[in-house]
Amino acid sequence: MIDAIGFDADDTLWHNETIFEENHRRFCALLSRWHDAATVESKLLETEMRNLALFGYGIKGFALSSIETAIELTEGRISGEELREILAMAKRMLEHPVELLPGARATVEALAGDFTLLLITKGDLRDQERKIQRSGLAGHFAHHEIVSEKNTRTYARILARHGLDASRFLMVGNSLRSDILPVLELGGHAVHVPYPLTWEHERAEPPPAETDRFHALERLDQLPALVWRLSPPRR
Amino acid sequence: MIDAIGFDADDTLWHNETIFEENHRRFCALLSRWHDAATVESKLLETEMRNLALFGYGIKGFALSSIETAIELTEGRISGEELREILAMAKRMLEHPVELLPGARATVEALAGDFTLLLITKGDLRDQERKIQRSGLAGHFAHHEIVSEKNTRTYARILARHGLDASRFLMVGNSLRSDILPVLELGGHAVHVPYPLTWEHERAEPPPAETDRFHALERLDQLPALVWRLSPPRR
Repeated sequence: MIDAIGFDADDTLWHNETIFEENHRRFCALLSRWHDAATVESKLLETEMRNLALFGYGIKGFALSSIETAIELTEGRISGEELREILAMAKRMLEHPVELLPGARATVEALAGDFTLLLITKGDLRDQERKIQRSGLAGHFAHHEIVSEKNTRTYARILARHGLDASRFLMVGNSLRSDILPVLELGGHAVHVPYPLTWEHERAEPPPAETDRFHALERLDQLPALVWRLSPPRR
Repeated sequence: MIDAIGFDADDTLWHNETIFEENHRRFCALLSRWHDAATVESKLLETEMRNLALFGYGIKGFALSSIETAIELTEGRISGEELREILAMAKRMLEHPVELLPGARATVEALAGDFTLLLITKGDLRDQERKIQRSGLAGHFAHHEIVSEKNTRTYARILARHGLDASRFLMVGNSLRSDILPVLELGGHAVHVPYPLTWEHERAEPPPAETDRFHALERLDQLPALVWRLSPPRR
């Protein structure tokens, strides 16, 4: 039986990585006078990983790491105008409309009546709040949890705060590393719905086949049928 | 009677604005070839205010606004080396040790046994979490709330989440705008303990004299006596 369902937000309910990828391409184009795209991409990832503990996830940290990478890769020769363009890119990302993934609204609406829904997302506080509000889905979730990292400690804290039992909790998300593995480790259920793009940092091996609490779906709209199979409706 | 006490963190329990001010001075020095300090300060504040809705509070937004200001004020002529110095300043701020204010530890310890203590702070998620952990005070607080803005809606949400009654809640902080006025508006009690420095954006007029739920103290170590006068010990 399932009491509560946690939804990841970025790339599970709405598009996110496509926006980052688009801006990666713009960033590579901006530096193409100096380096090829592969060099720029690998240097940017290296900078982001080095800064992650200090900056955390989100667009502001991405922007700062992009500026740092641009200065390093051009040995300080990047122009003020080009740096201004990186800042403008970051602002456009922060203002980007929220585009729901196919089936997101219907899936959330279908489950909201019978289960306690939690939105569990990581990133910059204000940016995530903005997206939750603009998604039009905010009201369906009993709790919004914006966290700095999604690991077993984070999930254990969230479950304890809301008096939820891990064995009756199901988490849905696109990231094996952040949404699936820590929840399985706590004894919860997890449903992986992949997004066409995955940020290098979020890649992980799928859980071992013997876990019957792990499920993989191709699309989010297949979730209600799975949930009702695991946990027949209360009414 | 008081059940729960909310503490602001930055400039109430530990130093923060001094660190920003120090970096403002460094930033002005960096641009002193182009402009006097007053011009730099006023342009930086203007940029921060323009970006606040997108970036929110915290060091990452400050760093991005500083870079934007530096490019604007130098018409793009600032060097890569100088921009690298702005990035390094931001990282040093994020790594800065937490320096408790005088009386902070004793005050929190004195009240933790008899009241539910909440830590209510705004800024970047990961940075605030880091400071809470490094403060050594984390365990005294029943709840840590890191929020993107401190207004009546935020406080109402926090009180509701923890089943607290505004009339039995007391908030302590250095910012009239963020810690005092919204809590008084909700019918709660508020104690203003000023910090020697106040960021322009946090300035506000004190509440009208007729409110007996507002108190002003010079130092944090005067708080326990005030709280026990308002709400005699339960034991």
